[in-house]
Amino acid sequence: MKKEFDSHKKRYTLCILVQDIPGVLSQVARLFSRKGYNIESIVSGETDRPGITRISIELLTDERLIDQIAAQCGKLLPVLAVRVLDSGNSIRREIALIKIRTRTRDDREEIIQIANIFRAKIIDICRESLTIAVFGTPAKNKALIDTLSDCEILEIARSGSIAMERGPGSIYADA
Amino acid sequence: MKKEFDSHKKRYTLCILVQDIPGVLSQVARLFSRKGYNIESIVSGETDRPGITRISIELLTDERLIDQIAAQCGKLLPVLAVRVLDSGNSIRREIALIKIRTRTRDDREEIIQIANIFRAKIIDICRESLTIAVFGTPAKNKALIDTLSDCEILEIARSGSIAMERGPGSIYADA
Repeated sequence: MKKEFDSHKKRYTLCILVQDIPGVLSQVARLFSRKGYNIESIVSGETDRPGITRISIELLTDERLIDQIAAQCGKLLPVLAVRVLDSGNSIRREIALIKIRTRTRDDREEIIQIANIFRAKIIDICRESLTIAVFGTPAKNKALIDTLSDCEILEIARSGSIAMERGPGSIYADA
Repeated sequence: MKKEFDSHKKRYTLCILVQDIPGVLSQVARLFSRKGYNIESIVSGETDRPGITRISIELLTDERLIDQIAAQCGKLLPVLAVRVLDSGNSIRREIALIKIRTRTRDDREEIIQIANIFRAKIIDICRESLTIAVFGTPAKNKALIDTLSDCEILEIARSGSIAMERGPGSIYADA
């Protein structure tokens, strides 16, 4: 039974346009923690419009619940627009920075080779370590991290994914 | 006088390792909003260690205050480690997705040309619009957005920047 229920769960991205006022992020985060929704990742950054911030929240949930969450977000005062995106109607990208220990020249060569295959970039290098940056779909980035799992990974920083609707539609149409 | 004071302000990234428990993001965000610290951007995503989330918060502040903020973050219960990074000791990357209206074939060609110069990728195309993704330093991404400002921008989503210390040091050493 549980499995059947889980199979309805999908990865959604909630795009929220908010006024850039102090405490707005804490207000949004509080809504999610109060309701017990489990956030997979969150990204908040500026847009092209002054005073407007875009928050992308990734959630693993079902269709009924995501609409409910979107409606609750829409009721918060500083929220200007909310859009629900899924993998069917949107494009998703994320970055990961990965720092790996390199003990020998062979270590370094192997990592550089793998990085090239994934079109990742070497962004820092020193005698003992190497840092690569990769940019792509969450699945591609995960594949690279898996491939590197035999190496001694010192640190990984992954951004959550940011998403945008396919086609000419814009979230500003709702604001 | 004000100018002199402002000139001490620098862009810092606070890297925070936290236990992945419900409400942790809201706890961190509440600390910042209660103290009135202005967050430039926030990114929260998984790491290579199960149950551990990494939050990157970008702030524009001075040296004295950033150490105070870091100490306050460190006192929160789910926080495992805090590290203060600045442009001198770290590498910073961010992504931006930019959707642009294309009315004519010339529009499209011009945007593709600009995208190529910035090594940005076309990730969605339709008759009326084009979406490009760019990955780089915040300054590079801003330069691309500025170059495109004569076009009709429909939507921009920027991730906050994620940062990692240069060299072999790791935030896990503090945890």
